[in-house]
Amino acid sequence: MDLKQYQEKLAQFAEERNWEQFHSPKNLSMALSGEVGELVELFQWLTEEKSKIESLDDDTVSRVKDELADIFIYLLRLADKLNIDLEGAVRNKIALNANKYPIGLSYNSAVKYQ
Amino acid sequence: MDLKQYQEKLAQFAEERNWEQFHSPKNLSMALSGEVGELVELFQWLTEEKSKIESLDDDTVSRVKDELADIFIYLLRLADKLNIDLEGAVRNKIALNANKYPIGLSYNSAVKYQ
Amino acid sequence: MDLKQYQEKLAQFAEERNWEQFHSPKNLSMALSGEVGELVELFQWLTEEKSKIESLDDDTVSRVKDELADIFIYLLRLADKLNIDLEGAVRNKIALNANKYPIGLSYNSAVKYQ
Amino acid sequence: MDLKQYQEKLAQFAEERNWEQFHSPKNLSMALSGEVGELVELFQWLTEEKSKIESLDDDTVSRVKDELADIFIYLLRLADKLNIDLEGAVRNKIALNANKYPIGLSYNSAVKYQ
Repeated sequence: MDLKQYQEKLAQFAEERNWEQFHSPKNLSMALSGEVGELVELFQWLTEEKSKIESLDDDTVSRVKDELADIFIYLLRLADKLNIDLEGAVRNKIALNANKYPIGLSYNSAVKYQ
Repeated sequence: MDLKQYQEKLAQFAEERNWEQFHSPKNLSMALSGEVGELVELFQWLTEEKSKIESLDDDTVSRVKDELADIFIYLLRLADKLNIDLEGAVRNKIALNANKYPIGLSYNSAVKYQ
Repeated sequence: MDLKQYQEKLAQFAEERNWEQFHSPKNLSMALSGEVGELVELFQWLTEEKSKIESLDDDTVSRVKDELADIFIYLLRLADKLNIDLEGAVRNKIALNANKYPIGLSYNSAVKYQ
Repeated sequence: MDLKQYQEKLAQFAEERNWEQFHSPKNLSMALSGEVGELVELFQWLTEEKSKIESLDDDTVSRVKDELADIFIYLLRLADKLNIDLEGAVRNKIALNANKYPIGLSYNSAVKYQ
């Protein structure tokens, strides 16, 4: 997946509708928050077990897919507006986490994983 | 960016620490909500203008980068646990949005963009 | 407003529907997150100026009111399930904040107000 | 608890620090989102059982109390800025919910409770 290519498509989409005026980083962070809220609502009354793919009905899977797409779209847009290289940021973060959560100490423990 | 490759790296990371027990879709949606909350906090008292890349200080940009990486990591993990093809979901969503927000009607208007 | 009285009403409401099984603190925190997400969506594309009461249309005010009620209801429920005295917690917090944000230092500055 | 009295105290607190400029409804909704995100983080890796008061350690209870206070404070501020009567809104909502979730139909079912 070429992130840049998707970001260009989304930028074009916004420009054609004159939506750049709405897409400040502040507003995009709010849009992310709204979409994640909708995602959380889909899982809020389910047990952890029932939230797993084997137990979800098709309608819920389809709604979750929809929310994940929205979250990804706003994430791509926000990174684009801030000139942040998402792929590099993820790579750095994974390397940092490997140091922060050494296998021995973090085995079975999510305590610091926040 | 090969999303699958990152998802495998993240899965291995979780397995090595026996963290799969924590990574139910329900819990991962909460983790996303927590990270997005931290992102929103970085922008909450800034004006829209001050939230733009030209106005942010280096420390804030670095913290935003960190949050975007965390959000992306949990998004990749969640999609992986639910067998959802993120790239396909985004492609579908962009096509749907093109119909939902026709250029003429949506010009200058974010009303339905939710 | 007698918070306790509302909490009892909400507890009775849940018991009559056998909903106590769903109202773990974990789940209630998710419900709060979902409702706040809906609230944020109402403001996400508005400028700060347009988000003020003078500029909001009646429909938006009514939807905001609805979300604030939902947030309050889940907040009351969660505090009740955790035996947390909301009023005492708020009183303590206000006292703490007075020390944390001395008028002189915090004048015009929201930097530490997080 | 006299909500109005707390709202006046919070308004005075903001005025003394010249913070009214930051407290647009838009910004306050973001602050709520940030605080709820912090609350969710406290519960994200716990099972529902472990999120209950009997199982939480003192430190977590104290942090939860802190977050609930912050959420309540921003909720009171936001309602104040929008001239929304929180107590009335909650009373209306409880009455509406009683119709929306009739005891017979909603017994054991959280399906529509969103």
